[in-house]
Amino acid sequence: MRFGHCDPAGIVFYPRYFEMLNELVEDWFGNGLGLPFEQLIGQRRVGMPTAQLETRFVRVSRHGDSLVQRIHIERLGRSSVTLRVVFDGKDEGVSGPLVEFTQVLVCTSLSDHKPQAFPDDLRAALQRSLAAQQETSS
Amino acid sequence: MRFGHCDPAGIVFYPRYFEMLNELVEDWFGNGLGLPFEQLIGQRRVGMPTAQLETRFVRVSRHGDSLVQRIHIERLGRSSVTLRVVFDGKDEGVSGPLVEFTQVLVCTSLSDHKPQAFPDDLRAALQRSLAAQQETSS
Amino acid sequence: MRFGHCDPAGIVFYPRYFEMLNELVEDWFGNGLGLPFEQLIGQRRVGMPTAQLETRFVRVSRHGDSLVQRIHIERLGRSSVTLRVVFDGKDEGVSGPLVEFTQVLVCTSLSDHKPQAFPDDLRAALQRSLAAQQETSS
Amino acid sequence: MRFGHCDPAGIVFYPRYFEMLNELVEDWFGNGLGLPFEQLIGQRRVGMPTAQLETRFVRVSRHGDSLVQRIHIERLGRSSVTLRVVFDGKDEGVSGPLVEFTQVLVCTSLSDHKPQAFPDDLRAALQRSLAAQQETSS
Repeated sequence: MRFGHCDPAGIVFYPRYFEMLNELVEDWFGNGLGLPFEQLIGQRRVGMPTAQLETRFVRVSRHGDSLVQRIHIERLGRSSVTLRVVFDGKDEGVSGPLVEFTQVLVCTSLSDHKPQAFPDDLRAALQRSLAAQQETSS
Repeated sequence: MRFGHCDPAGIVFYPRYFEMLNELVEDWFGNGLGLPFEQLIGQRRVGMPTAQLETRFVRVSRHGDSLVQRIHIERLGRSSVTLRVVFDGKDEGVSGPLVEFTQVLVCTSLSDHKPQAFPDDLRAALQRSLAAQQETSS
Repeated sequence: MRFGHCDPAGIVFYPRYFEMLNELVEDWFGNGLGLPFEQLIGQRRVGMPTAQLETRFVRVSRHGDSLVQRIHIERLGRSSVTLRVVFDGKDEGVSGPLVEFTQVLVCTSLSDHKPQAFPDDLRAALQRSLAAQQETSS
Repeated sequence: MRFGHCDPAGIVFYPRYFEMLNELVEDWFGNGLGLPFEQLIGQRRVGMPTAQLETRFVRVSRHGDSLVQRIHIERLGRSSVTLRVVFDGKDEGVSGPLVEFTQVLVCTSLSDHKPQAFPDDLRAALQRSLAAQQETSS
């Protein structure tokens, strides 16, 4: 955790976790799914706003702690995808989850911000990612 | 909504909502409960971290939209309080909730970040606030 | 200063000052000049990026300190305006400047991000503001 | 540049540059100088606030642009160091500086926020870094 993530109580200021979550999802779209946000959102005007977000802050995290971030597709629908994201860290030598998120992303058109089915290439990339998960866990 | 709250899709970047939520809760402690964070957290070293946070993003919000923020105690425990917070706004003339939060705050000691019972003055202030709510809604 | 503005050293994390500066300038355009950013930037696609920014951090500021913000036009050109902004505050009872900014804003077209002359209504509003300043100080 | 760095005008929201600058300086202390902020600031209570910061925004930067960051010691004093930092990027195929910073950091004691001479290990690390620069450029 960086200096700028932390507050006068010496622990991570929780709104910063959502910036980290957004960065992780952005990296996953670009590197994992091969569909960078700047193309999807910037050029193709496909929105990917968050409709629902449940967060459990399990342990406090301090400046200098390191993080391992995991992302997992929990449910893939026609125009929405539910992600399970875990930030693991060390808190006084004990390693384990610091924060757990369940995030529903909805595919929208940026012209009217209404939901729309995933474009074919994005759907295919999400399905490949989901299939790879199931192989790993079976 | 401010310019700096919004993203290239022209709508509020959702991590900014959590900064607004934190500011609202900070103002509520200072102005509503009479216990400013800089005294509680800064001088008395009483922490008030968020343990759980459920968020529903109901409608998109755009730069220049105005907000009405409401805060409501849903449950008051020995060392935790559950808040229900609603940000109402206008989206294309329709007014109604933009974002709804259910937030569990836990009272901790900043020496070890472990939960502790609310200090007496904070408990009394929360109980007064809860009683005032019930009168209003009965 | 808010909890979320401050860092583990207990003082304002300096990138937060630039968010405050941006909010002040946004408010000044909307309330002072009568040209809200959401119209100017959002609808009319007139950009107002910062080209140069000199900042002097005079005193540290702590959580809970209050601020008085002053804005002053130092120079008005054809497509740029130089602002002098001072954040005054109290530091251990002594009141005086905490941060001083000299900021050059340039008027651009958002289609190509190239400088352009101020639109007539914005130029007129800036000139009125400049004239009002000179009366006050003469 | 990330999605969350950019504004409705589609370009980087300038307060985000200062978060990037702070992260770069934090990484340079940890990786370059071998003195991580969490030890220096957290454990040893040595502050490193910014006293002065001049910034020139040379070109606009868009979502998805990549950055190269360079840091250079311009002047090393008893209790302050002046850094020259350049963020290079590509803007429509042209590569070159996007933003240039001149930043004065002052070493302070976090007990009273007053300037103090650099601790010996930090001074030695800064001198090694300065010497390495001069060899490279001679």
